[in-house]
Amino acid sequence: MRHDLDYIFRPRSVAVIGASRREDSVGGQLLRNLFRFEFNGPVFPINPKAKVVHSTKCYPSVLDVPDEIDLAVIVVPKQLVPKMIDDCGKKGVKGIVMITAGFREVGPKGIEAEEKLIKKIRKYGMRMVGPNCFGVINTDPDVRLNATFATALPLPGKIGFLSQSGALGEAILDHASQLNLGLSMFVSVGNKADVAGNDLLEYWKDDPQTELILLYLESFGDPRRFTMLARSIVQQKPIIVVKAGRTEAGARAASSHTGALAGLDVAAEALLDQCGVLRVRSMEELFDVSEAFANQPIPKGQRVAIVTNAGGPGILAADACVSLGLDLPPFNPKTITTLRKFSNPEASYSNPMDMVSGAGSEQYRKTLKAVLQDNNVDAVIVIFVPPITIDPVGVAQAIIAASQNSFNKPILCCFMSAADERSGIKDLKRNRLPVYLFPESAALALSAMVKYGKFRERKTGKIGEFKVKKKKAETIFTRALRERREYLTEKEVVDVLEAYGIPFPKAEIANTYDEALERAEKLEFPVALKIVSPEVIHKSDIGGVVLDIRNEAELIRGIKQIVDATKPIKKKLGEFQIMIQEMITGGKETILGMIQDPKFGPLIMFGMGGIYVETFKDVNFRIHPITDIEALEMVKTLKSFPLLKGVRGEKPVAFDVIAEMLQRVSQLVSDFNAIQEMDVNPFIAFPEREKCTAVDGRIRIRLDS
Amino acid sequence: MRHDLDYIFRPRSVAVIGASRREDSVGGQLLRNLFRFEFNGPVFPINPKAKVVHSTKCYPSVLDVPDEIDLAVIVVPKQLVPKMIDDCGKKGVKGIVMITAGFREVGPKGIEAEEKLIKKIRKYGMRMVGPNCFGVINTDPDVRLNATFATALPLPGKIGFLSQSGALGEAILDHASQLNLGLSMFVSVGNKADVAGNDLLEYWKDDPQTELILLYLESFGDPRRFTMLARSIVQQKPIIVVKAGRTEAGARAASSHTGALAGLDVAAEALLDQCGVLRVRSMEELFDVSEAFANQPIPKGQRVAIVTNAGGPGILAADACVSLGLDLPPFNPKTITTLRKFSNPEASYSNPMDMVSGAGSEQYRKTLKAVLQDNNVDAVIVIFVPPITIDPVGVAQAIIAASQNSFNKPILCCFMSAADERSGIKDLKRNRLPVYLFPESAALALSAMVKYGKFRERKTGKIGEFKVKKKKAETIFTRALRERREYLTEKEVVDVLEAYGIPFPKAEIANTYDEALERAEKLEFPVALKIVSPEVIHKSDIGGVVLDIRNEAELIRGIKQIVDATKPIKKKLGEFQIMIQEMITGGKETILGMIQDPKFGPLIMFGMGGIYVETFKDVNFRIHPITDIEALEMVKTLKSFPLLKGVRGEKPVAFDVIAEMLQRVSQLVSDFNAIQEMDVNPFIAFPEREKCTAVDGRIRIRLDS
Repeated sequence: MRHDLDYIFRPRSVAVIGASRREDSVGGQLLRNLFRFEFNGPVFPINPKAKVVHSTKCYPSVLDVPDEIDLAVIVVPKQLVPKMIDDCGKKGVKGIVMITAGFREVGPKGIEAEEKLIKKIRKYGMRMVGPNCFGVINTDPDVRLNATFATALPLPGKIGFLSQSGALGEAILDHASQLNLGLSMFVSVGNKADVAGNDLLEYWKDDPQTELILLYLESFGDPRRFTMLARSIVQQKPIIVVKAGRTEAGARAASSHTGALAGLDVAAEALLDQCGVLRVRSMEELFDVSEAFANQPIPKGQRVAIVTNAGGPGILAADACVSLGLDLPPFNPKTITTLRKFSNPEASYSNPMDMVSGAGSEQYRKTLKAVLQDNNVDAVIVIFVPPITIDPVGVAQAIIAASQNSFNKPILCCFMSAADERSGIKDLKRNRLPVYLFPESAALALSAMVKYGKFRERKTGKIGEFKVKKKKAETIFTRALRERREYLTEKEVVDVLEAYGIPFPKAEIANTYDEALERAEKLEFPVALKIVSPEVIHKSDIGGVVLDIRNEAELIRGIKQIVDATKPIKKKLGEFQIMIQEMITGGKETILGMIQDPKFGPLIMFGMGGIYVETFKDVNFRIHPITDIEALEMVKTLKSFPLLKGVRGEKPVAFDVIAEMLQRVSQLVSDFNAIQEMDVNPFIAFPEREKCTAVDGRIRIRLDS
Repeated sequence: MRHDLDYIFRPRSVAVIGASRREDSVGGQLLRNLFRFEFNGPVFPINPKAKVVHSTKCYPSVLDVPDEIDLAVIVVPKQLVPKMIDDCGKKGVKGIVMITAGFREVGPKGIEAEEKLIKKIRKYGMRMVGPNCFGVINTDPDVRLNATFATALPLPGKIGFLSQSGALGEAILDHASQLNLGLSMFVSVGNKADVAGNDLLEYWKDDPQTELILLYLESFGDPRRFTMLARSIVQQKPIIVVKAGRTEAGARAASSHTGALAGLDVAAEALLDQCGVLRVRSMEELFDVSEAFANQPIPKGQRVAIVTNAGGPGILAADACVSLGLDLPPFNPKTITTLRKFSNPEASYSNPMDMVSGAGSEQYRKTLKAVLQDNNVDAVIVIFVPPITIDPVGVAQAIIAASQNSFNKPILCCFMSAADERSGIKDLKRNRLPVYLFPESAALALSAMVKYGKFRERKTGKIGEFKVKKKKAETIFTRALRERREYLTEKEVVDVLEAYGIPFPKAEIANTYDEALERAEKLEFPVALKIVSPEVIHKSDIGGVVLDIRNEAELIRGIKQIVDATKPIKKKLGEFQIMIQEMITGGKETILGMIQDPKFGPLIMFGMGGIYVETFKDVNFRIHPITDIEALEMVKTLKSFPLLKGVRGEKPVAFDVIAEMLQRVSQLVSDFNAIQEMDVNPFIAFPEREKCTAVDGRIRIRLDS
């Protein structure tokens, strides 16, 4: 059976509604592109004002076409769109590419028009790409569809490219052709009114022509479905994404541009990371990285050999590799023995291997051969700066020859010269060797491949299910919701967290000095004092916490201190109590938390104590639910992780306990979607498993849930 | 009078020693380049084996040339070099460009040969560029010297380019030509045996042809002279540098490559920063940034307007600008009123200004005019993604027209299309408008200009001179040197620092329990206990510190704790004393320090308490001596500065006191160059000036000084 998107991407016939006689119009160019690219089926121009367009019989309406039509590309003024869709519906057209703009992206009226359009599409059982898009391409030799108005013709290849910006389409296709990057399909999704990015991911998942997926995104339509799809796709095919709107200004522009509600970038970042999707920072990086992925195998490790005929560029490459987390191991002694046999006496055999400027094609061939054989090496960057005495084409041929026996190790080239006929660059590209002008670009591309390779080998882990007292927590949430209290009380928070296996120190509540003393003695000094009042969320901020009380005198002073500190807000506070808590000293302060993202759902957070979170923003987010492996990664990839591992001979804290606590938070969030926001702050970690404990926490609920 | 480097860079005649009949040899190409570039004086080929080279009479030796020779370019095998220099000496040649390699860069024998070469050069009163270099260029119409073996001809312009890598020379000249970047001079300095980078900086300082200086460096020859020169040059001319060897692997390659002792990169970073030299991370960035500097004025501030006909690229530009610290302010309401008059109804007037894809040349012209007039805007990035319906050349012309009235605000263009004749890109470049393929490159270039502009307006400050007790410190250092003690004792450190106005808490030394108690009561509890022994440097590491002793019982327990902890090393320690120190509680821990760099001299350091330094490496270095403004910057540009400013409503600490302490450290280091390394750790900062105090310190001296 045909996939419903086949009507769009593998149509047997195409009508261009709004086909123009003028070549320099969108409709005129698009029609001609179908012919220029030799579409495999018939193309029907539709235009009531013309009899012939581009030497082809033109029909006033699709209804006048005698043949069946799979796909209609619509390029008419927006007010004519509804009529055209009706015509297509009557005709039985099942695929629409809507180039016409003026919908969601222009505000309330456009949104309304788009909603009406969608209703029609659904009514007729059609699928639609767009509106407000640049068109679609499928280079499959059985299809040969170029339904865009691009000036450059696409090269066939194995990249599926999705662009959420129509305008970028032209630039993308143009640049890809220049880089010799072949596409399997290109889709400008426009406003994504019907066909969304996720539909394409699903379509490409099993498309044998597509081996590499590139995405230019401004927003995520359905992050959860994206996660599911991407996780499974990246096991087979790399996905590389430029996500615009990284910054607030960018996101502002993104939302005024596509009308999409941009999620927090931190959520997008977490999502991409968890799915093993590679995020690059710019279009340029996207192309650099793609050139490597499209042409070379994924390296088995991160050990790079740099082979160069010029010291300077070798250093630049080494700098870039190391900055990007790659290693430059020394060569195997056997390799060095081999290299010495034919190298220039002035060559340097450390890595980078500097063959010095006399090196010609033979040296390139032999050196590459030796280095590729070296079992310390997973990948090679080969640099050539053409000296006048050496023929670049010969060097290129030598690299091509060496690449025939590469032991499946990727080879990336850097030829620092203009890409003219005598430069050898075209020969390399024809032989699937990526070539960069600057060494840093090669290093960047290689680092992306290494990252992908690591991800593919990584285990996903499983979502833990701990034995918890769900009923007890349920009672508390139900009561709070009934009483319409946005924040749980101190006591409720402790009860809920303890019910989910997150430990707290022993604590007692006191109403008077005498009670306080009695409780403190029962718990044993030192103790901590905390104000207990439903009005107080940030206890420390108002002076409601006194730590390390060692004796009766200090206890009395401590309570007085809290009473004095709260005097200015006494009226608001009314009566309050004091919590006497077992004092936890030492250990490392961490924070565990969760926040609901309107689009991405719950984000689980982990970070080091207050200052690290607030000043260094050193926190890790993961999209809920998290697996055991993800939880451990959240801990271990924190910048301040060395503090948990212990500095100056300290023992490491039990970070598997932290990871378990994160999973318990995740389970709590799964069980109660009323939780809008929560944190366990601080959670104090010790080397001893049993000493690890939460000290304070906060849970906010959605009263409308 | 002629500058001695004029013999090299402004010669009246040139001899090419090793001029070859073969065009594809280094000597052959170099000779021909002199002719191709139309050198203004006579060129004399020297080659005993030829009568004519390149249709020019050839001489066996310089001694046979009847005319005077200013510059000899030497391209002979290295063993012939000494003879050629002797010939040149006899002939009275004053300038040498030594292309020949095989000197310092090839190891001990080469170093010896280079030292002999230098002796000869000095003996004859010559100046020499190289050896192991790519040659020199001066495009001044009065000179027209191209003494390189590059294949590309240089374009005249105002950039002085110094490359420490010969091999990169070809790539640099080639790429510069392609980008339409004109050079005033190009110098491949090779091994810098005689003429060093600093000589060129000095030469370029007053060269009216050179308005922008680009450096590719692998090492600093004389950092102090560089500092002096660079500081003064950047007031007039920007200096942009790629410093290779940022990472350990890179530095290793750098030292095996040029034989230069690479300094710590942190020192290089500090040095460049202090001098206002812009450091870029790659050759690509170097060119991107140069294109902007060479063609557009420096912006007065960091407020950027983005004007685009395509949403996606606008977002990418906005993201990049904000990430680089630039602002995207909203437009002035007056501007928006103006824009509304002629813009597409679907346009977005927030910044980025998205004119949407119908925008043609008239809209570009009018929009740019309005935006350039806006007093909220300091610079403009204008993006054009060519839709088929719009003529790019027309848009380019519109931008050129608008740029005529730019109010001295820089305009950077991003044209996302191939640079062919119909793209308008050449027109823009001809009119000194930098053009980038990707929006991120434009943002990067602009951010570099903003950084330079800020630096130029920054005041340098002055080096403070505090009233100190130098004599007292001198006595201590003299004694320690005499006694050959590498580390000053606890007491000596405190005395030296106090002599220089760095305060310490009150402290007493005790030999017995009773003494300890007496001292503690005199100082008042709480106190801190510290072991005092010349054998102990890191007191905490061996358990030699107990803090916050509140009473007699705790004091006894504390002393016992130290005694117990030091048992394993009792033998080594022998008898030790205990220091009873007034306990400092609260405040923010900082570290002040100094370390001697073998090349850069003393580096002054500032950072936040132990963990921040050790885990986050959040420290600032400055090259000694530091001015008052630099000292304050060291504090304020720390990543953890917000902690000093106070989080959650805390009062800021007296960071002017910290800055003063850093200057005092600098003064101490000036006065005693025997100090090899020192730190004041911790220095505890409080909001109250008088409470700020050092608590501990360490001073190591050079016994060979």
